[in-house]
Amino acid sequence: MRWLILLLIALAAPAPATPREWVDANRAAIVREYLPLLAIPNVASNSEDIRRNAEHILAMMERRGLAPRLLESEDGSAPPLVYGEWPVPGATRTLVIYAHYDGQPVTPSAWTIAPPFEPALFTGAAAPGQPPIALPGESDAIEDDWRIYARSASDDKAGVMAILAAVDALRAEGGTPGFNLKIVFEGEEEAGSPNLAALLRRHRELLQSDGWIIVDGPAHASGPPQLTLGVRGLSSADLTVYGPVRPLHSGHYGNWAPNPAMMLAELLASMKDETGRVTIAGFYDDVTPLTAVELAAIDAVPPPDAGLMEELGLGAVEGRGATLTDLIHLPSLNVNGLAAADVGENARNVIPSEAMASIDMRLVLGNDPRRQFDRLAAHIRAQGFEVLDRAPAMDERRRFPRIARLTFEGGYPAARTSLDHPLARSVREALGSRPLIVLPSMGGSLPLYLLEQELGAPNVVVALWNHDNNQHAEDENVRLGNLFDGIVAIADIMAME
Amino acid sequence: MRWLILLLIALAAPAPATPREWVDANRAAIVREYLPLLAIPNVASNSEDIRRNAEHILAMMERRGLAPRLLESEDGSAPPLVYGEWPVPGATRTLVIYAHYDGQPVTPSAWTIAPPFEPALFTGAAAPGQPPIALPGESDAIEDDWRIYARSASDDKAGVMAILAAVDALRAEGGTPGFNLKIVFEGEEEAGSPNLAALLRRHRELLQSDGWIIVDGPAHASGPPQLTLGVRGLSSADLTVYGPVRPLHSGHYGNWAPNPAMMLAELLASMKDETGRVTIAGFYDDVTPLTAVELAAIDAVPPPDAGLMEELGLGAVEGRGATLTDLIHLPSLNVNGLAAADVGENARNVIPSEAMASIDMRLVLGNDPRRQFDRLAAHIRAQGFEVLDRAPAMDERRRFPRIARLTFEGGYPAARTSLDHPLARSVREALGSRPLIVLPSMGGSLPLYLLEQELGAPNVVVALWNHDNNQHAEDENVRLGNLFDGIVAIADIMAME
Repeated sequence: MRWLILLLIALAAPAPATPREWVDANRAAIVREYLPLLAIPNVASNSEDIRRNAEHILAMMERRGLAPRLLESEDGSAPPLVYGEWPVPGATRTLVIYAHYDGQPVTPSAWTIAPPFEPALFTGAAAPGQPPIALPGESDAIEDDWRIYARSASDDKAGVMAILAAVDALRAEGGTPGFNLKIVFEGEEEAGSPNLAALLRRHRELLQSDGWIIVDGPAHASGPPQLTLGVRGLSSADLTVYGPVRPLHSGHYGNWAPNPAMMLAELLASMKDETGRVTIAGFYDDVTPLTAVELAAIDAVPPPDAGLMEELGLGAVEGRGATLTDLIHLPSLNVNGLAAADVGENARNVIPSEAMASIDMRLVLGNDPRRQFDRLAAHIRAQGFEVLDRAPAMDERRRFPRIARLTFEGGYPAARTSLDHPLARSVREALGSRPLIVLPSMGGSLPLYLLEQELGAPNVVVALWNHDNNQHAEDENVRLGNLFDGIVAIADIMAME
Repeated sequence: MRWLILLLIALAAPAPATPREWVDANRAAIVREYLPLLAIPNVASNSEDIRRNAEHILAMMERRGLAPRLLESEDGSAPPLVYGEWPVPGATRTLVIYAHYDGQPVTPSAWTIAPPFEPALFTGAAAPGQPPIALPGESDAIEDDWRIYARSASDDKAGVMAILAAVDALRAEGGTPGFNLKIVFEGEEEAGSPNLAALLRRHRELLQSDGWIIVDGPAHASGPPQLTLGVRGLSSADLTVYGPVRPLHSGHYGNWAPNPAMMLAELLASMKDETGRVTIAGFYDDVTPLTAVELAAIDAVPPPDAGLMEELGLGAVEGRGATLTDLIHLPSLNVNGLAAADVGENARNVIPSEAMASIDMRLVLGNDPRRQFDRLAAHIRAQGFEVLDRAPAMDERRRFPRIARLTFEGGYPAARTSLDHPLARSVREALGSRPLIVLPSMGGSLPLYLLEQELGAPNVVVALWNHDNNQHAEDENVRLGNLFDGIVAIADIMAME
C-alpha cells in the first residue's frame, strides 16, 4: 500500500518547479511583496524608521518559517541584525547569507522619477515626469526590462527580497539548502556599520559558520553577475575652509578678503594631477600587490570601459589608459560634494564665509583608514593650512592665514578572500552554468574585514543588480530581470553542498 | 501791527528744530514707521511683493505731500520707479535723490538672528538665539548702538526711510530744499536694473535734472560716511562643469569617471595666482588709469585694513600689500558660491554629475561687461573645455573630454564723476561739518552709467550705513545711530543751494 499512498501524494501535490520556473510563475507576487518593503524609509540615522524595517522583514521571515529574531546591541539602541535560519540535519557546512536593509541618505528634491520612499513601477528606464504604471495583478505578466524606482530598490533591499524569494523557490522545488543556512540582514551598512563588530561579538555563538555570502552590489557593466572575493575599504572626511567670519559684500571687499571657495578649489586641485593620480605623499605606499592569479582574473574581465563611456556620456576618463577593472584595485580619492553660499538663481554677490567639501578615499589591501586620513591631513598642512578638527576660534582666525577643519567621518580597511578558498570555489561552481565575472575585489566598500576579525569567517560577494541602478544617488532603481535572475542565482547557491 | 502778528505766530508754533534735534526727538517714531516697510518681502524677482513695497512707499510719500506717483514700464510688468517731488520756486538747480527698495535674494534657513522679513530690534549686534526687544513706545529712548535685523535694513530701504525722514526734518525746521527736489526709488537694483534704461527713457521729461545723489552703501570701515564719485561695474556669470550623465557610486567608478567637482576646483584655481591676482589673459588691459587728483584722494583715506582684519578674523589678505582702498579701484573676480551634490551629513559616496559656481567680476572705468565675460570664456576654453551657453547634449558629452556651461548673468560698466564737478563740490561742502571720506569709486556696483547715458546726469553716491551690516548676506542689519545720523546728513544735503 505504501507505494500507492506515495503515488497519490505525488499526483495531488503540485509538480516540483525549478527555481527558474517558480520565479517566472510568481513575478507579480514577488513585486507585490517587494513594494511595501521599499515604502518604509530606511536612512540608518533614523532609528524609528530602521526598526519599522526590521519588524517588517521579521514578519516576512516568519511567514517562511525561518524562526527569525532580532539580534540587538547591548543597550538595544543600534539597528538590529535580523536573523533567520533553515537548519539542514546532516549538512557538512554552515553558511551565512547576508544583505543589508538600510539605505543611503536622500535629498528628495533631487529625485526626478518618484519620491525616494514611494516606490513606483515603470516599463523600462524612466524619464522625469513619466507616469508610473499600475501595480500588476497576481497573474499579470512582468517583463525583464521593467524597473522599480525607490531608495534601496537595488542597494540593498533587493538582497533582502531575493534571499527570501530564493527560500520560496527552493521550497517550491521540494528541496532544502545544501548546508545549514543562516540569514543575516544588517541595518546600518550605509552608515559605515559602526555597531557591527559589537553585534557580531555579542552573538558570536549563533553566527558561527564556515563562511559568509554577501548579496550586494551591481552586476558587471557588461551584463553578467559578479563574484567578488573582496571589497575596497573606505576612509571618509569632511573638509571646511574658512574665510571672513561673516559673508562679505563682494564689491566692497572683493579681491581683498580671501575667498574660501577659491581657497578650497586650490586645495582640492592640489590633491590630484591632470591624469587623476593622487598627489598626496605616500598615498599608494601601503598597497599589497596583487598575486599572479588575481592579475590573471582581472585580465580575463571584458573591459567595460568603452560601453560605459558611451552610456555615461564621458569624452575622457582618468587613469592614464588603465581600465576601470585595473583602477578599482587601487586606492582612490573622490570629492562627494561641494558647498559654499549659493549658486545660480539664489547666488548673491558675496564672499562666502566658509566652503566645504566631503571626500571619500577608497582603500585596498594594505591601506589603513586612519593612516590614509593622516596623509590627507599632512597634505593640507603642507599647502600652508592650520588643520583643526573643529571650527576655529576668533583668535585662531586672526593668527593663521589659512585654516582648514578636517574631520574623520569613519571608515574601515579593505578585505579579500583567496581565489582558491573552498567557499570561493563552490560558489563559483554553483553559478557556473551562467556567464560570470570573477574579480579579486569590487570597487565598492563593505565592512567585510569584521567577519574575518570577529568570526574568522571567509566571505565572498555576489553582485546581481543592474549596473545602471543609480545606487547611492537620486532615482535609484532595480531592473526586474536582474531581480528575478538574482533570485534564481541565490537559490542555486543555497542548493550547493 | 505786522510785527505783533508775526511774534504771536512764532510763539504759537513749535520752535523750529534743527534736523539733529528733530531726529533725536523722533527716534522711536522713525523706527515705528520703518519696521512695517522692512516686513514686506522685496526680492526683485517676485513682482507681487515688489508692487506691495511700491504701494507702501507711495503711501509714505503721500502722507508727506510729495505728490508721488509710480513710473511704470511700457507694459507695466517691470518694478515701477516710485517718484515724488518738492518743487522750490526760484531754485537754480534741480537734483534727484535716489535709493532702491528691492533687496538681495534670501536663504531664510541661513538667517540666525531673525527671519529676513520679520524685522527685529536689538540693543546692539545680536547673537544667534538672542531674543529681540519690544517695539519702543513713541517717546521711549533709543540708543545709537541699537540695530534692526532684516533684509534691506541697510541695503537699501535705509535709503528710502532716511530720505523721507529728512523731508520731515527739513519741514520741522521750517525750511525748504535749496533746489527743486525730485525723489526716485528703484525696485530692481539688486537684480541688475534690467529695466532702468527703458524707464529713464520713458520718463525722461519728468526726470530731467542737474544731477543725481544716490543714497546707498555702507559708511567707511573706519566710521565716517563716504562720498563716492563712482561705482564699480559688474559682470556676473554662472559656470557649470559636467561629469557622468548621472551621479555614480564612488566605489564602483571612483578614479575612473572624471569628477566634475574636482574639474571645477582645478578650473577655478587656474583663474587666480597665490597673491589673488587674476590670471585671465587681458583681465587688467582696459583699465582707465586714475588721475593724480584721484590717487591723492585715495591716499588720504585712512587704511581700514588692520581694523577690518581684526574684526573679520582674517590672518591674511590678498593683493600683495596693496590696501583695500587701492584694490577696490581695480577689477576683481570672485566666487559667490559653489555647489555639487551634498556635503556633511547629507553627503553620499557619489561622483556628482555636475558642479556649479557663480562668479562675479567687478569692473572699473574702461572695462566692458561683455568683454570681461568673453575673456573669462576664453580662459576656460584655454583650459581644454568646450564652452557652451546651455547644457550639453549626449553626443557632446561623448565627444568632448571637458565641457563647461558658461552663461552671462548680466552686468553693466563702472561710472565715475570728476572730483571737481559742481555737484561733487556742493555735496562735499554740505557734509563738510562732519568727518567724511571722499573716494573716486566705491567697491560695490550700481547702474549709474545709465544716468549719464540716458539723461546726461552727473551723479555722486553718499554711503551712510554701518559697514558691518551684512548687506547681501544673511543677518543683514542697520545700526540705528547710522540711520539717525544719515537722516541729518541727507537733510543737510537737501538744504544746500
